[in-house]
Amino acid sequence: MARRETTVAGPGSRALVVDLIRSAGPISRVELTVATGLTQPSISNIVRKLIDDGVVRETGATVATGGKPRSLLVINSHAIYGLGMQLGVDAITCVATDTRGGVVGRQLVEGVAGEAPELAVQRMATLCRDMMSGLGLAHEVIAGLAVVAPGPIEPSGGVVLGTPGLQLWEGFPLASALEQALDLPVLVDNDSAAAAVGEFWSRQVSRDDTFGSVYMGTGIGAGVVIDGALYRGAGSNAGELGHISIERDGIACYCGNRGCLERYAAPPAVVALARQQPDLRRELALDDIPADARAFDEIARAAVQGVPAARALVEDSAEQLADAVLTLVNLLDLNGIVLAGPGFAVAGSIYTRTIRRVLAERAFARSAHGIVVELSSNPRDSAAIGAAALILQGSVAPGHGPQLSALST
Amino acid sequence: MARRETTVAGPGSRALVVDLIRSAGPISRVELTVATGLTQPSISNIVRKLIDDGVVRETGATVATGGKPRSLLVINSHAIYGLGMQLGVDAITCVATDTRGGVVGRQLVEGVAGEAPELAVQRMATLCRDMMSGLGLAHEVIAGLAVVAPGPIEPSGGVVLGTPGLQLWEGFPLASALEQALDLPVLVDNDSAAAAVGEFWSRQVSRDDTFGSVYMGTGIGAGVVIDGALYRGAGSNAGELGHISIERDGIACYCGNRGCLERYAAPPAVVALARQQPDLRRELALDDIPADARAFDEIARAAVQGVPAARALVEDSAEQLADAVLTLVNLLDLNGIVLAGPGFAVAGSIYTRTIRRVLAERAFARSAHGIVVELSSNPRDSAAIGAAALILQGSVAPGHGPQLSALST
Repeated sequence: MARRETTVAGPGSRALVVDLIRSAGPISRVELTVATGLTQPSISNIVRKLIDDGVVRETGATVATGGKPRSLLVINSHAIYGLGMQLGVDAITCVATDTRGGVVGRQLVEGVAGEAPELAVQRMATLCRDMMSGLGLAHEVIAGLAVVAPGPIEPSGGVVLGTPGLQLWEGFPLASALEQALDLPVLVDNDSAAAAVGEFWSRQVSRDDTFGSVYMGTGIGAGVVIDGALYRGAGSNAGELGHISIERDGIACYCGNRGCLERYAAPPAVVALARQQPDLRRELALDDIPADARAFDEIARAAVQGVPAARALVEDSAEQLADAVLTLVNLLDLNGIVLAGPGFAVAGSIYTRTIRRVLAERAFARSAHGIVVELSSNPRDSAAIGAAALILQGSVAPGHGPQLSALST
Repeated sequence: MARRETTVAGPGSRALVVDLIRSAGPISRVELTVATGLTQPSISNIVRKLIDDGVVRETGATVATGGKPRSLLVINSHAIYGLGMQLGVDAITCVATDTRGGVVGRQLVEGVAGEAPELAVQRMATLCRDMMSGLGLAHEVIAGLAVVAPGPIEPSGGVVLGTPGLQLWEGFPLASALEQALDLPVLVDNDSAAAAVGEFWSRQVSRDDTFGSVYMGTGIGAGVVIDGALYRGAGSNAGELGHISIERDGIACYCGNRGCLERYAAPPAVVALARQQPDLRRELALDDIPADARAFDEIARAAVQGVPAARALVEDSAEQLADAVLTLVNLLDLNGIVLAGPGFAVAGSIYTRTIRRVLAERAFARSAHGIVVELSSNPRDSAAIGAAALILQGSVAPGHGPQLSALST
């Protein structure tokens, strides 16, 4: 089982250099030599290859040093594009991003509720083709497509393992079906994991940071990027933040554990509590909003606007999530966290503030170093954007992303 | 800040090869080529250098293949030795291990309670010199000395940061003082972190395992080894298992958090509960045992022998620890855990059994893969043995252990 997407030999050096140019660029070859510990000839070779491949370009600007002027390197945004898709019951979101992770196109179509996977795959393929032609992106500049869904996922087989609401998809060979339809490399992965890579990739996070993201959709997950690579654990199930216990002998969870964070703090739990309050239910017209995700947005909006009952519910959820994030931080000694996912789209500021306060007051290492807590600049699309980043990382920084060549099995 | 002890370039390949020979040896060059993905010439070069350095030797046995017979490689146990020392208030334990992590010598002297660090350092140096001469180990075959203590530690400075009971040592430059006295590389590290590396190094754990250790001394800590390297986090404070909350709004802890595992499950907490029970206190003569560590051993012994009140206390502690280990496993998706430290020396079987049961019933990934839970073969000395392993890893597998050359600052 692959645990971290990294190799020790050759390819790792290329990934390291790409990552430095991505996070620290514009940067000179001499600075790369210092930062990597690689020899000057090694850096020259790797950079020459990256320029030949179109991944990196010289800015044209130079730094005067007294000696030979040093030209500066940046990632070539237009070298290659990634497609990312979030598979959902209510909606399918598709994005295209450039090499630096910037979104160049976005489309939303109806979700796959009750639809046969074989038919849905045809719609998904059409969506991708429409996006590519609408943006004028040729087949050759597309590195591939990643489809993400709430876990569990079997990434090596490209199979969704029966997510709630996606039971029809259990065991369906999604990756190979889409590969055949699109003639592109396709991978399938977990949405929280993808969001972590996306935030890492597009935020100029340095690989020297120990960076994590907390993802809140229907459930709650976390992703951790160590040395520039997504940490997956023994069986790609790392980061199950929603299934750590915050209440001893608490509510029994389908996962087997008790008192799981998700059962208290995730949107469906908050909505269930709100529906039990007749006044709030009436005030927000919750009976007219059967879907939990939309009902949660309403509650979150009311919380931000200061409706006391809504505010109390969201603040409780934020406190509970903050307790779990504190556990994550004390175990992994993170110094950066991004909040991503639709659960943070409306009331992200309340969550951000609460988590910052709890970490500042109670984190074990708080006196040793700060912990930056930020909200994703696009919480709702972060998993789809992250999916595109997974593809880009696998393509331009092989050794740290998934092995694209090994995907077509 | 170093977060994981790894480099991507050259040295990583050597560390990878050493790790494979250590965990999978006897192994042939051809098998190494397959396992690493390195070219045959690269493997030949690395192995030749390892044999020249005395780290690896050929067994003399060969495997008939029809073609040229393949000779098998193993770690040369006697290539080099490591010294490990656990600094404690009650005792100082010093061990010497061979290259494979096998203990070749052990000595225990009085702890440093109330002693001036300058004087204690002289005793520690004498202890090392006595051990080396008693074992007939020349200065040249000693890779170095690692001293471990309960955290927090500043490994890069070799300084203990004021562990409870070791306040006199706060800010004392322990590494440089011992380096001067012994003319050997010296490093200072956290005891739980060292124990994790020691168990990884000496148990033939493969770098493909996502391996963690839980350490129980006065407090509780964890260490995680990822891709063969100790995971340290942003500021070397990863693995603070004792300071994750198991009880919402529970007991306030000195660390700033509330409901910390340590305050419920660690030996001093269990002893405090036992002292509150007059019958148990009398039965075990706890009034005659002021030291918590020894009193805990008595309670643990009574628990193993079936004394109901003692059994209940230890089982509660084991349940609480198991809850926290479950959190660690759900966040990091580990597939192997070793219990180490003096807290497991007597009643380790009760803890092992409880943790196994809780993980089998409630771990998120329990259906995906097993999680092996084992007791250290030497729980009491595991931190000192781990300290020696830290030195050996830094010496024979540079890039994954601490950089020994950088220690003499």
